[in-house]
Amino acid sequence: MDYYKKALEMHEEHKGKIEVVSKVPVKTREDLSTAYTPGVAEPCREIAKDPSAAYTYTAKGNLVAVVSNGTAVLGLGNIGAAASQPVMEGKAILFKEFGGVDAFPICLDTEDPEKVIEAVRLLAPVFGGINLEDISSPNCFYIEETLEKELDIPVFHDDQHGTAIVVTAALLGALRVVKKDIGSIKVVVNGPGAAGTAIIKMLLAAGVKNVIACDENGILYKDRGVGIQDHKKMLCEITNKEDLRGDLSDAIKGADVFIGVSVAGALKPEMAKTMAKDAIVFAMANPTPEILPDEAKAAGVRVIGTGRSDFANQINNVLAFPGVFKGALSVRARDINTAMKVAAAHAIADLVSDEERSEDYIIPGAFDPRVAQAVADAVAKTARETGVARL
Amino acid sequence: MDYYKKALEMHEEHKGKIEVVSKVPVKTREDLSTAYTPGVAEPCREIAKDPSAAYTYTAKGNLVAVVSNGTAVLGLGNIGAAASQPVMEGKAILFKEFGGVDAFPICLDTEDPEKVIEAVRLLAPVFGGINLEDISSPNCFYIEETLEKELDIPVFHDDQHGTAIVVTAALLGALRVVKKDIGSIKVVVNGPGAAGTAIIKMLLAAGVKNVIACDENGILYKDRGVGIQDHKKMLCEITNKEDLRGDLSDAIKGADVFIGVSVAGALKPEMAKTMAKDAIVFAMANPTPEILPDEAKAAGVRVIGTGRSDFANQINNVLAFPGVFKGALSVRARDINTAMKVAAAHAIADLVSDEERSEDYIIPGAFDPRVAQAVADAVAKTARETGVARL
Repeated sequence: MDYYKKALEMHEEHKGKIEVVSKVPVKTREDLSTAYTPGVAEPCREIAKDPSAAYTYTAKGNLVAVVSNGTAVLGLGNIGAAASQPVMEGKAILFKEFGGVDAFPICLDTEDPEKVIEAVRLLAPVFGGINLEDISSPNCFYIEETLEKELDIPVFHDDQHGTAIVVTAALLGALRVVKKDIGSIKVVVNGPGAAGTAIIKMLLAAGVKNVIACDENGILYKDRGVGIQDHKKMLCEITNKEDLRGDLSDAIKGADVFIGVSVAGALKPEMAKTMAKDAIVFAMANPTPEILPDEAKAAGVRVIGTGRSDFANQINNVLAFPGVFKGALSVRARDINTAMKVAAAHAIADLVSDEERSEDYIIPGAFDPRVAQAVADAVAKTARETGVARL
Repeated sequence: MDYYKKALEMHEEHKGKIEVVSKVPVKTREDLSTAYTPGVAEPCREIAKDPSAAYTYTAKGNLVAVVSNGTAVLGLGNIGAAASQPVMEGKAILFKEFGGVDAFPICLDTEDPEKVIEAVRLLAPVFGGINLEDISSPNCFYIEETLEKELDIPVFHDDQHGTAIVVTAALLGALRVVKKDIGSIKVVVNGPGAAGTAIIKMLLAAGVKNVIACDENGILYKDRGVGIQDHKKMLCEITNKEDLRGDLSDAIKGADVFIGVSVAGALKPEMAKTMAKDAIVFAMANPTPEILPDEAKAAGVRVIGTGRSDFANQINNVLAFPGVFKGALSVRARDINTAMKVAAAHAIADLVSDEERSEDYIIPGAFDPRVAQAVADAVAKTARETGVARL
């Protein structure tokens, strides 16, 4: 199937993928006087008196901005705001179709993180949440952190946290298959960019004790010097407690889990052979994974997941973000905190029953209709328990 | 009918008025691979190569931003961005229902015109046009002018030009009823704010030669000094050729047309009595006009129009903006120039046939299904003739 050709035809036929429609009738003079002047003045006055009335009288409470500046789009790199729009429209329709959440693409024509922050700050009133998407590292960290502090609505960089939630869910499922305890495993994360960093932080929050991060210069350790700046300094503080040195082939020896958010072929079969018994590999480089499932199995790996829909155990963000926002919006959460993200991961993993669970079925499929609501319920409950809910 | 109560109930029941939906199916793995990864990469690549491909592969070509900063909302004044959202959502659904144009509310949390300009510049890639709304004067002039120059998509401040188009259309209709020539009439415009200024400019472009503008300090003339700044200086250059002095009661003597965009009761019946034979009055203060239709008729005025739907001859912007953008977008106009606006006014006026036309029927009603397409056709044709069309 040539998806590229098919996608071009489909996008051209429909002129993109989103449309903005009315939820109320506008067919009569009376409709017009209720939805527009003079009637509309009254909800305006209510919001002017009490800003939280916006959740009652406008679309805000169920509306998410999908914000990108096009600096790290899919595997395409820095293609700019305009060229990122097909992805952001796609994201918007997934929000609606999977989570019942309205979402709108905001593609900002700037590489300057301060301008991204300023624009989002200015347009925030209309939205109940901000989904950051495809913004390059390290600016994505600064943008998210700054907006989280300044805005009273949740800000969520899906490339980081959506991926981290689904990887954590997959790991929880895989560990049940191989019957290992999360507190005693050794995990190697290859590619500590935006996604890798978020994965590491969430794994630690979920109970993993021993994580080794590797980049193109090998294992991250405090005194390495080379390439240890920005967020990698922070990673050296929270990973590699034994102060290992070397490259990926050294790190991987005896590891229970390999998580790749790096490049095609990064995990050689001979490296995989040195992993612990009942090893787990999540090879998420796109479109070609760090190791192909067949190669990994041949090298003795027991559970393998990838980002692809044509292999078993697809690690797909669509399992997380629609439900995460649905849940956060349902309780007007101020924030999407780590506890809520970990709760989302557990909710996804728990949908696979012990009877069904196997090496090839550790997480639900992308179209499992139970996922978004289960995630939303867990996220809303945890938002209440952690004090960030306003409803 | 208590529209305020009804509007509150309706807005609460539906949680606002807009939703963002998918134009394409997302039910199967194949749908997902076409609308999202991996297929979506291909339209992204096409746009990265040629930015104009955004019109082919995204929603841009039929998508308008309804931009406000909430500084001059309806008659409510400066109520802020959040409180303006019900109006901007209302505008968005009118775009869709009347013109088939997708529109999305952008409510910017700032009174600083530079920040409004910067935000719109940054988020422009997604949109095919910018509708400015309810931004206070004089900043609205500066914002529109600057964005028009900087952006390659049309920018249209509806409070100015939408009103001006419909007033011009109504005047064309009324002049046919009273059988006066547009080149020989005397017009008094009371309230030279954003709308009044645009009305004056468009009337002159449509063929009116003699316009007198009045504000709270009386007739505008070059050497008046008091209150003559910003755009009023410019108005002194293009109005009041005879250099009249005095107040509204002086200006109105012998006038053929009174156009009020000012305050309730501004045109006293005794003033109306001094107008020329077969006088025309458009009294658009909301909700109470400058003079009530009954009073105006009793004072000898022959044709009267207001902003209200419960009187004859409603001068309603909805006759203009949906068709204006529909037409401009259909030919990818770079701009909505004066010729296009005048063409829109003629198209609206021409929909009323000579047989139907009367003192109480000078322009089509808001729900006349012919209007948007007729306006769109005229606007598109004139865009081509004036060289601003790109299709």
